[in-house]
Amino acid sequence: MNPMSALKAYTALELPRIEACLREKAQALSPYVRATALHVLEAGGKRLRPMLTLLTARAMGYRTPDIYPLACSLELLHSATLLHDDILDGAALRRNRPTAHTVFGQTHTILAGDVLLALANTMVASYGKPALTACLSEAILRTCSGEIEEIAHIRDPELTLDGYLSIITGKTAFLIQAACQSGAILAGASPEMERIAAEYGLHLGIAFQLVDDVLDYTSASEVAGKTTGGDLREGKLTLPLIFYIESLAPEAREGFTKAFKHNTLPEGEVEQVLLRVARDGHAATTRAIAASYIEKARQCLSRFPDAPETTLLAAALEGMASRDK
Amino acid sequence: MNPMSALKAYTALELPRIEACLREKAQALSPYVRATALHVLEAGGKRLRPMLTLLTARAMGYRTPDIYPLACSLELLHSATLLHDDILDGAALRRNRPTAHTVFGQTHTILAGDVLLALANTMVASYGKPALTACLSEAILRTCSGEIEEIAHIRDPELTLDGYLSIITGKTAFLIQAACQSGAILAGASPEMERIAAEYGLHLGIAFQLVDDVLDYTSASEVAGKTTGGDLREGKLTLPLIFYIESLAPEAREGFTKAFKHNTLPEGEVEQVLLRVARDGHAATTRAIAASYIEKARQCLSRFPDAPETTLLAAALEGMASRDK
Repeated sequence: MNPMSALKAYTALELPRIEACLREKAQALSPYVRATALHVLEAGGKRLRPMLTLLTARAMGYRTPDIYPLACSLELLHSATLLHDDILDGAALRRNRPTAHTVFGQTHTILAGDVLLALANTMVASYGKPALTACLSEAILRTCSGEIEEIAHIRDPELTLDGYLSIITGKTAFLIQAACQSGAILAGASPEMERIAAEYGLHLGIAFQLVDDVLDYTSASEVAGKTTGGDLREGKLTLPLIFYIESLAPEAREGFTKAFKHNTLPEGEVEQVLLRVARDGHAATTRAIAASYIEKARQCLSRFPDAPETTLLAAALEGMASRDK
Repeated sequence: MNPMSALKAYTALELPRIEACLREKAQALSPYVRATALHVLEAGGKRLRPMLTLLTARAMGYRTPDIYPLACSLELLHSATLLHDDILDGAALRRNRPTAHTVFGQTHTILAGDVLLALANTMVASYGKPALTACLSEAILRTCSGEIEEIAHIRDPELTLDGYLSIITGKTAFLIQAACQSGAILAGASPEMERIAAEYGLHLGIAFQLVDDVLDYTSASEVAGKTTGGDLREGKLTLPLIFYIESLAPEAREGFTKAFKHNTLPEGEVEQVLLRVARDGHAATTRAIAASYIEKARQCLSRFPDAPETTLLAAALEGMASRDK
């Protein structure tokens, strides 16, 4: 079996267990927020973070079946941030479905986010491992800070590449890093191996968000489950757009950045920019940068124990650079 | 020196240390949410929760000065819930000042709440004590659930005394319980003594909220720092109002509960109800129930170690039943 097929088979085996654990935890929530929590939890994500926790822990020799609550706590934390983010962004759709706050209202959605965060914390605490709690609580704080940084730079055409990388590292990569690092901690890995697992997750997380930002420009909405051009319309300056702006002649650049800053871009021009970002290679350049992070992640993997799960983690990287949803 | 004067002197000594720790933590936050966090943190609360952590830990023999981050984490958690609650309640004033979301907007306020919660978690995690993390994360989950329960019963005239007690235990008492329990855990108290500390905090917390709910009916706004009658106007059925409704003749009761349920109570009648709750003894009856919880807390204290801080914790109870703000 080639590694990609093996990863698919492995995922098919583990996903139902992850889903069952998530459902069990959500069902135990207060009826008042249960539907809101289930709305975001059952939207059919890839469960990337729980799968990374499982694979990393097992690659490092962990065989105890008590791993699911930890793995699922990462998904609950992720879901909590989605609930609050969609309010902050005023987003109407996520994965082709109406966002929670448009269905259940803001009150339920703020509370459901708070309660998922709290629930995840109790699940992590239940392992009684200080290093695990420290890892996750630090990741949550950094994720919050990344979201704050992103919102602080809404409609900021001056955002640099470094500023952009800091935002995506904060809002996305730190939690993915924690997914891998917490797996290593649970497995009792050496400090050095824990550091390598964390670094693998960090690079993977950055690549994941870079590709996500490309898809916002290039993927048809029926594939990505979101409206294309959402970032541009919401005033989020992501890497494909940074490259696009850099490619403009001075006069055109000044006109565009002014319109972007003041949210006066006509819809016709939005469509034009989406086309040009794809056509003129800015999406492709961004994917190439994502590929460089995937390469860094691969180098980390080469120092993982020689285990079947390490091969599966490598297969996960394969799919990452080319993913179209 | 009588115990009440001793408590005042002790508080005067410790408050600056608590304030300094809170300020230091808030200053380290992202500039984007710092002002919002400081707005709620510098509103001049009593720092009841941190003081309880200090006093409980020291009553149980803890003398290490590393206690302030733990004590302050309770205040940060409390502040985080205030930020989100004021959005959910649509509250305009807190402690005579405009609420954070009316000053800084909803986005900053949701994020500031999230980041204070995350920050508090990292501060608790930094002690490396699983029991401490478990205690606090459980308290946060229960606090969320209490807030959810409260909102689920907005404008519900059928809310029973038991339902009401469950709400105030959830939204207020569990965090105050955790303030005391976490002090005991830090001090390495025996499981039995930890349980007694938790019980002391639980009863104190219930009494605290009962008196708070009385003050919403009886205290002039310049003393309480809130608009009197806020609970009635927001559709929150608290104990003084439950007693008032029970005192009505069947016809008047039906008219009032219908108007309460559908938010059609004329402002003139709101004023009448406020007057009657005070005049007809419903506020006093609620204070008497608060006193019974304070008595339970006092019984717990009688099993605390014979330490100066135990006397101060008793003095804190003295002031609680009679407080007017």
